[in-house]
Amino acid sequence: MIKTLYWNQNNLYILDQRLLPLKTKYILCNNHTKVAKTIKDMAIRGAPAIGVAAAFGVYIASCEKSFNSVKELKRHLEKAINLLGSTRPTAVNLFWALDRMQSLIRGSYKSVDELRARLKKEVFDIFENDVQVNKKIGANGARLIRKNSRILTHCNAGALATAGYGTALGIIRSAFEKRKVKMVFVDETRPYLQGARLTTWELKQEGIPFVLITDNMAGHFMQMGAIDAIIVGADRIASNGDVANKIGTYSLAVLAKHHKIPFYVAAPTSSIDFSISCGSRIEIEERSTEEVVNINRNRIAPIGTVARHPAFDVTPNKYITAIITEKGVFKPRNLTLS
Amino acid sequence: MIKTLYWNQNNLYILDQRLLPLKTKYILCNNHTKVAKTIKDMAIRGAPAIGVAAAFGVYIASCEKSFNSVKELKRHLEKAINLLGSTRPTAVNLFWALDRMQSLIRGSYKSVDELRARLKKEVFDIFENDVQVNKKIGANGARLIRKNSRILTHCNAGALATAGYGTALGIIRSAFEKRKVKMVFVDETRPYLQGARLTTWELKQEGIPFVLITDNMAGHFMQMGAIDAIIVGADRIASNGDVANKIGTYSLAVLAKHHKIPFYVAAPTSSIDFSISCGSRIEIEERSTEEVVNINRNRIAPIGTVARHPAFDVTPNKYITAIITEKGVFKPRNLTLS
Repeated sequence: MIKTLYWNQNNLYILDQRLLPLKTKYILCNNHTKVAKTIKDMAIRGAPAIGVAAAFGVYIASCEKSFNSVKELKRHLEKAINLLGSTRPTAVNLFWALDRMQSLIRGSYKSVDELRARLKKEVFDIFENDVQVNKKIGANGARLIRKNSRILTHCNAGALATAGYGTALGIIRSAFEKRKVKMVFVDETRPYLQGARLTTWELKQEGIPFVLITDNMAGHFMQMGAIDAIIVGADRIASNGDVANKIGTYSLAVLAKHHKIPFYVAAPTSSIDFSISCGSRIEIEERSTEEVVNINRNRIAPIGTVARHPAFDVTPNKYITAIITEKGVFKPRNLTLS
Repeated sequence: MIKTLYWNQNNLYILDQRLLPLKTKYILCNNHTKVAKTIKDMAIRGAPAIGVAAAFGVYIASCEKSFNSVKELKRHLEKAINLLGSTRPTAVNLFWALDRMQSLIRGSYKSVDELRARLKKEVFDIFENDVQVNKKIGANGARLIRKNSRILTHCNAGALATAGYGTALGIIRSAFEKRKVKMVFVDETRPYLQGARLTTWELKQEGIPFVLITDNMAGHFMQMGAIDAIIVGADRIASNGDVANKIGTYSLAVLAKHHKIPFYVAAPTSSIDFSISCGSRIEIEERSTEEVVNINRNRIAPIGTVARHPAFDVTPNKYITAIITEKGVFKPRNLTLS
């Protein structure tokens, strides 16, 4: 299985997902600015994956030059955390990972090396834990899937969106192992085409049967009775269970409710933001018009065309059948970590 | 205003809409086989436009070689009609136009030239009448639009989908003249991107304000309260008011109902098929996987990916606020021509 990101000889290598499925190329990140740019430009994407990448960014910041004192290192890390935190506003895992690093930095250390060592341990903890968390999500979710299910998924909430295995796709992997998956319907997910480019690529490698559809076909296949369940990931979950996820998720959720199809959200508890009461408080990133009017550098609309590009939307809790986490399956209104 | 198709020195010229908005190139059609291929390959599309093109195809068939008798000409025309009728199965205007030509052919004629002359008169009748019909649809529909409306449209039901002016876009044109249109939201309409390529292009020429969105954003903007009305065209309307139209229409209609947004279908009465009782009887064309996995010859999915490609879907009458025709505005269940 290809890696979303890996650490080798004190450098972070991040798979450039913009080039998939045609090219497999890694971006060498030997300073935190490079990590920030890689996140901002969406070479790496997916809430858990950018959390892990940002944590690595903090550790790399501690190694990218020499420091005369712990205080000097802490000042440098503060700036690095600010930059890494400014890359993308919606996915909360980014802030969750940076907060973990920040808490650590607040402690007292005898030497620059001691703090560096603690940061290194923490980032590898976050990194390795992510895969374990995903496998638990997969196992918890697979129990909900009936035999011979035809499952629709949107965007990519797979190994490529995480440190490995995936959230929504983790459930599909796990259910497939249990012989419960008959077919996966993959929404292509405009404008970035994460479904067409990434989810198909992962499913093909695993030999899981799939069919690609354009986003506007989803309702038609629900109407035809061809979809038994929908599973998506999440970029941020409010404490009331409202979910911000890739643009198009809300439309799917309304269509699912209309057709009485279960609609599941799969996410680690690190995607839950207990500090906000509901989804309307989540900042929705608006990205560039250019990302809509060009596909692989091919222009698809007349010069001067203005496009809107909200990267996410918010699905209110009432449309969500269950939120599947590593700590169990929750009704969206009953989210709790205790 | 650029022409969808025109007649010059005994040849039909059809605008190759696959190249828009980047190139404006006409295909010379000097035989009916060429016309059939142009329709089948979607160089021309839109229910009324392919009806007009097919009628021209029949007339061209009568001129493309010499005939020794009326009987010989009729036999040739029969074959031409069969070929032209086999190009695309869903839009009923194609069959409506071919039926009109066929009825004429059934009459008795003294000479080859007499039949040719009658065919010529008939095709120009169909051609010129289409624009008049669209203007009436425009006027009838504009009355339903409130001031400052933000209107969403899907695919292209504009001048390019007709002999001129357009159906859904005809209403938008007409309402804009009456200063009722604040903004048009244009669904890009995958996989052919008729919205991104054609509707934007028409609106830009007219100076009507618009914004392009990906299909999966439509629900989000409805949720935000940014859409006041939805207007789409139709490829075939069953006698109970169920509507076959470009894939994605059904999803929009469900979302519109959920958000209590009026959902209008604009079409000439030639799009109504009184011979079928309901939408489930309409044949939905399934086109090639290749048209989904390639955008402008750029591959967007791994080799071997299978995509589904229903070109249309069926919206049941209960989701439709009104069907706007040249003969008036109808509740979908009360369609009548009397």
